[in-house]
Amino acid sequence: MIQKLISGIKEKDAPIVVGLDPTMKLMPKSLVDKHIAEHGQTLEAVGEAMFDYNKQIMDACADLIPAVKPQIAMYESYGIPGMIAYKKTVDYAKELGLVVIADIKRGDIGSTSTAYALGHLGSVQVGDYKYQGFDADMATVNPYLGTDGVKPFVDVCKEEDKGIFVLCKTSNPSSGEFQDRLIDGRPLYEHMAEKIEEWGADTREGNYSNVGAVVGATYPEMGAKLRKLMPHTYILVPGYGAQGGKGADLVNFFNEDGLGAIVNSSRGIIAAYQQEKYAKYGEANFAEASRAAVEDMLADIRGALN
Amino acid sequence: MIQKLISGIKEKDAPIVVGLDPTMKLMPKSLVDKHIAEHGQTLEAVGEAMFDYNKQIMDACADLIPAVKPQIAMYESYGIPGMIAYKKTVDYAKELGLVVIADIKRGDIGSTSTAYALGHLGSVQVGDYKYQGFDADMATVNPYLGTDGVKPFVDVCKEEDKGIFVLCKTSNPSSGEFQDRLIDGRPLYEHMAEKIEEWGADTREGNYSNVGAVVGATYPEMGAKLRKLMPHTYILVPGYGAQGGKGADLVNFFNEDGLGAIVNSSRGIIAAYQQEKYAKYGEANFAEASRAAVEDMLADIRGALN
Repeated sequence: MIQKLISGIKEKDAPIVVGLDPTMKLMPKSLVDKHIAEHGQTLEAVGEAMFDYNKQIMDACADLIPAVKPQIAMYESYGIPGMIAYKKTVDYAKELGLVVIADIKRGDIGSTSTAYALGHLGSVQVGDYKYQGFDADMATVNPYLGTDGVKPFVDVCKEEDKGIFVLCKTSNPSSGEFQDRLIDGRPLYEHMAEKIEEWGADTREGNYSNVGAVVGATYPEMGAKLRKLMPHTYILVPGYGAQGGKGADLVNFFNEDGLGAIVNSSRGIIAAYQQEKYAKYGEANFAEASRAAVEDMLADIRGALN
Repeated sequence: MIQKLISGIKEKDAPIVVGLDPTMKLMPKSLVDKHIAEHGQTLEAVGEAMFDYNKQIMDACADLIPAVKPQIAMYESYGIPGMIAYKKTVDYAKELGLVVIADIKRGDIGSTSTAYALGHLGSVQVGDYKYQGFDADMATVNPYLGTDGVKPFVDVCKEEDKGIFVLCKTSNPSSGEFQDRLIDGRPLYEHMAEKIEEWGADTREGNYSNVGAVVGATYPEMGAKLRKLMPHTYILVPGYGAQGGKGADLVNFFNEDGLGAIVNSSRGIIAAYQQEKYAKYGEANFAEASRAAVEDMLADIRGALN
């Protein structure tokens, strides 16, 4: 799977992923109202609005980007109708040929991690038939439980040609509270990085493994160190844009081959129409505003990398 | 919410919770076949079987236990029909007056944790109406991202009188890989314990807070230490039964008031009919076998505590 992602990145010259994290605050009011008119003030209306919003943004941006990253929490908020919108989003992205990185941050004891891995990346058997519950290409994984919580995901990656990104150093302000604490003189996130490189060792396709890492754009110096510690690990970099990360901060996350990192922006792209810079598009043309924001993000990152 | 849980524990003299983690291997074949006959070899059939299985076990055991703990991963494996079975399980347990501990192990950056907390413990607004996505009473939370990933759950607990259990020292074999590593001379799980006590400080109802901790039965010596470090924290103790923990190991997890811990058993209860000890019940009477296993678990734990 990592080679499929890399192909998309090279073909579109776009080491970026758009975070599809719809919320009531981010979606245009007129779009939500349209679905409320049809379904009433219900969870179903919000689910339909979420999918419509995502679909229009994907339709407007798909030729510019290799991947999307739906944040499942935003959909779980709205119960079953939200989960249906999540599933439709994943399926539609795949129809467009986009790699889907499911931002699910799951992780549990072994048998439970297996259930998550089968549900989100693999398949389950019912009698003579195989079914995919939520058929993403890659997923984020929380490693607090250690190897036996991560390994089931790695196994499914091998069997089904999928990929994961394991949390290493997250983008949020208090990520350091545990992740930066020194163990034998080195921060926990460095120990995690070594484990991630190890977990991925026998999943390599070319120079990169199917076990990636999450390292926040908001910590560029740590990014530089982690880049060196994990030479075969693709880094998913959240925190660009709305969380404060800039193009110049990102150079450290890439290898000398120009690969090795994929940068996420969510709010900065999907709600671009709310920014003064893109106000001219108006609420009705929110997807065009998103396209313009993708083009600006690409220019910023390509500029920083050259 | 913690006082509601404590009331149930006292009333039934039962500091236990039954883990509702249905899988194809655990459910009686005849039960699954019944639903396949109705819905074909589909995800819907499995979802219906899961709920039927849970319902019969809850009906058989509800008067003996204060709470159930559905493990959401088992339902996510089966996609949307699985999630519907999860929701029906939560709703039915609440109809029976059981406290529902959603074993979801969610945790993310602040705004995303808010979405999870609202979806599983709180509510969302759609126009003039409030909706609960998945309306559990308590939920498990993964703290790898630090305070700003946990705080949104604590806030929802305060607003909606709900509770959480934060992962501290998990029951799985490799939990020590990160959780036991020494930071300033003390294992990470002890630092976590102090944070958990702190996060819960202003959510106390009587002697206990609405922010609990998860500490595995498989590590009884660490349990004793953690019990002392978190005097106002309820401990959810997984790992009893199938994972190897025994009644005698559990004494350490309780305070001198006889409270402070709730012990989970999943497979050992819900698939009791598969054990030689309960074979006489047969597959058809699986729920009665579960009831007998609950009675034996209670006798084991009450014996150890006296």
